[in-house]
Amino acid sequence: MWPDDRLTSLLGIDHPIIQAPMAGGSSTPELAAAVGNAGGMGSIAAAMLDEEGLRSEAARARRATNGPLNINFFVHSPPGEDSAKAGVAVKLLAPYYDELGLGDVPEARATNFPFDEAMAEVVLALGPKLVSFHFGLPEKALVARLRDAGILVLSSATTVREAQILEQGGVDIIVAQGIEAGGHRGTFASSFEAAQVGTMALVPQVVDAVSAPVVAAGGIGDGRGIAAAFALGAAGVQLGTVFLNCAEAGIAPVYRAALLEARDEDTRVTDAFSGRPARGLANRYIEEMAPHKGSLPEFPLMNTLTGPLRKESAARGSGDFVSLWSGQAVGLNRETDARTLMETLVAQAQRLLAPR
Amino acid sequence: MWPDDRLTSLLGIDHPIIQAPMAGGSSTPELAAAVGNAGGMGSIAAAMLDEEGLRSEAARARRATNGPLNINFFVHSPPGEDSAKAGVAVKLLAPYYDELGLGDVPEARATNFPFDEAMAEVVLALGPKLVSFHFGLPEKALVARLRDAGILVLSSATTVREAQILEQGGVDIIVAQGIEAGGHRGTFASSFEAAQVGTMALVPQVVDAVSAPVVAAGGIGDGRGIAAAFALGAAGVQLGTVFLNCAEAGIAPVYRAALLEARDEDTRVTDAFSGRPARGLANRYIEEMAPHKGSLPEFPLMNTLTGPLRKESAARGSGDFVSLWSGQAVGLNRETDARTLMETLVAQAQRLLAPR
Repeated sequence: MWPDDRLTSLLGIDHPIIQAPMAGGSSTPELAAAVGNAGGMGSIAAAMLDEEGLRSEAARARRATNGPLNINFFVHSPPGEDSAKAGVAVKLLAPYYDELGLGDVPEARATNFPFDEAMAEVVLALGPKLVSFHFGLPEKALVARLRDAGILVLSSATTVREAQILEQGGVDIIVAQGIEAGGHRGTFASSFEAAQVGTMALVPQVVDAVSAPVVAAGGIGDGRGIAAAFALGAAGVQLGTVFLNCAEAGIAPVYRAALLEARDEDTRVTDAFSGRPARGLANRYIEEMAPHKGSLPEFPLMNTLTGPLRKESAARGSGDFVSLWSGQAVGLNRETDARTLMETLVAQAQRLLAPR
Repeated sequence: MWPDDRLTSLLGIDHPIIQAPMAGGSSTPELAAAVGNAGGMGSIAAAMLDEEGLRSEAARARRATNGPLNINFFVHSPPGEDSAKAGVAVKLLAPYYDELGLGDVPEARATNFPFDEAMAEVVLALGPKLVSFHFGLPEKALVARLRDAGILVLSSATTVREAQILEQGGVDIIVAQGIEAGGHRGTFASSFEAAQVGTMALVPQVVDAVSAPVVAAGGIGDGRGIAAAFALGAAGVQLGTVFLNCAEAGIAPVYRAALLEARDEDTRVTDAFSGRPARGLANRYIEEMAPHKGSLPEFPLMNTLTGPLRKESAARGSGDFVSLWSGQAVGLNRETDARTLMETLVAQAQRLLAPR
């Protein structure tokens, strides 16, 4: 049915399509369940959840599907204190807080935490098929605990070198995340400047360098991209942006509308929302903060500071301060639902992959 | 033989592979002839040639092939005078001129010129199958003269919007140049900041927006990329970097060696060599000039100023000041010759495209 069955066999799924975990409520447990029920791999984005939040989201997914699930975590290093950078951020954000009637800018605090022992316990109790990480891998012992429990482990590489590091770290599956991808760059070992390789170039070079199955991510928005990924040597794909216009996605109406209007050239990579480079639709906040790239508090401190702005802006129906995460294939987005989208993706890809 | 025969039919070639024109002697008439003789489309890079130079290169190609030829021109706007920028460049380059024993930095002058009436006369006399342009299109009357003479016209787009402009301008074929591509960005209507779309995302969105056949360029270094391009809806591919390690290419030994050692993450986009953004292997000059991005004289003034540095550095066997243009698929480069490379590309792609 597919030209390469390594990923589908490993994950026990019909179609080699992973719904990208999109933190902050963009991908919902209901979206994950619908993708799973349609034969793909649904993902719960746990990067911004605490233990109770993860249990709750997993329970919501389990009410809607018996299929395999992926749970995704960030594994960033906890940020160092940097009062100079915090001062810069407060000064830059104060006028925006004023404009939106939000009062004073609060102190920068980390309110989401990297994967740790306590979270590993929750995961082991939930027993997902797959755990995926972004920004590298947690310490070896934590990876080993998951794998010893029969859970598959995935992480993302943005360069060949990162893919080789992940393979040495014992992952079962490697996502090759091209520069086209929306949301946070998974970069963890190369410099952000170096790690800007497009999917077309990245996938075959990663495939040649590792033996684990490679999943292509970045710039894929329909069956053409899926078929192309297989031609490049990938065993599957991870799609994010195109799932955001599904009925099951949890994004604000202004974000949903912006995606439908956006074109290929409308995205930018910015560190101004979270403290780490991530790709989203250009808006007023990204443009005005562009000169301050590299001078802001680290992830997730900056993420906490922009939280009230993002929330209030969305509530007012303005995209000015919303992190409109999006990949460069956004021009292919259509309003739909997860089952219809999955059926369309599979049909398009298989028509291209089928014998002529 | 190929899943889409629009490009091969139009150009009268067996294989839908265009050898990218690489100016400054990197692609030679002998390379173009060898690619043509192997069933592809060879290109003469005329961007840095005067009329006599073009006649001479075309004659060299004609001695080696009867196949169809492409002649490529730049169509940049002539640069405005900017003494402030010229002063910045002289100040920055003087220490490098000193270091290489080159004396004083000369005055910035344009020594290569956009396509014009006189060059059109030369082209009409030579009668190539295809004329391709970079940085947009020349004035309408010149395009019309070529097309009236039965010459096909191609130009490159780096965004969907640019592709639509080219189609309105009457081109027969559109190259969709992804951000992975080596050498000069073809960007002419979008901002350079916006026009950074990866091939995987760019090609299908361009295909949906225009009716002309689309040629994928950027990040393609072997048959996997060619097969992927067809899956994305392209009718062919344009490859540059991978041809640079062919025996027929005209690059310096230090450049040739650098390409063979380079990895996916080793390229950068810089305006420091020519005054326009172009992708090449990171080296000392690119790194040291990075802080001065946007403050240098326009193309081709800056190109003239760096000419002596590039030449002397290469002669000394150092890559420090050489423009080592390269795309992001450079890790796929192998030392070979054009016929062997073409046979390998065709065999790899057709194996992937063939019924399973």
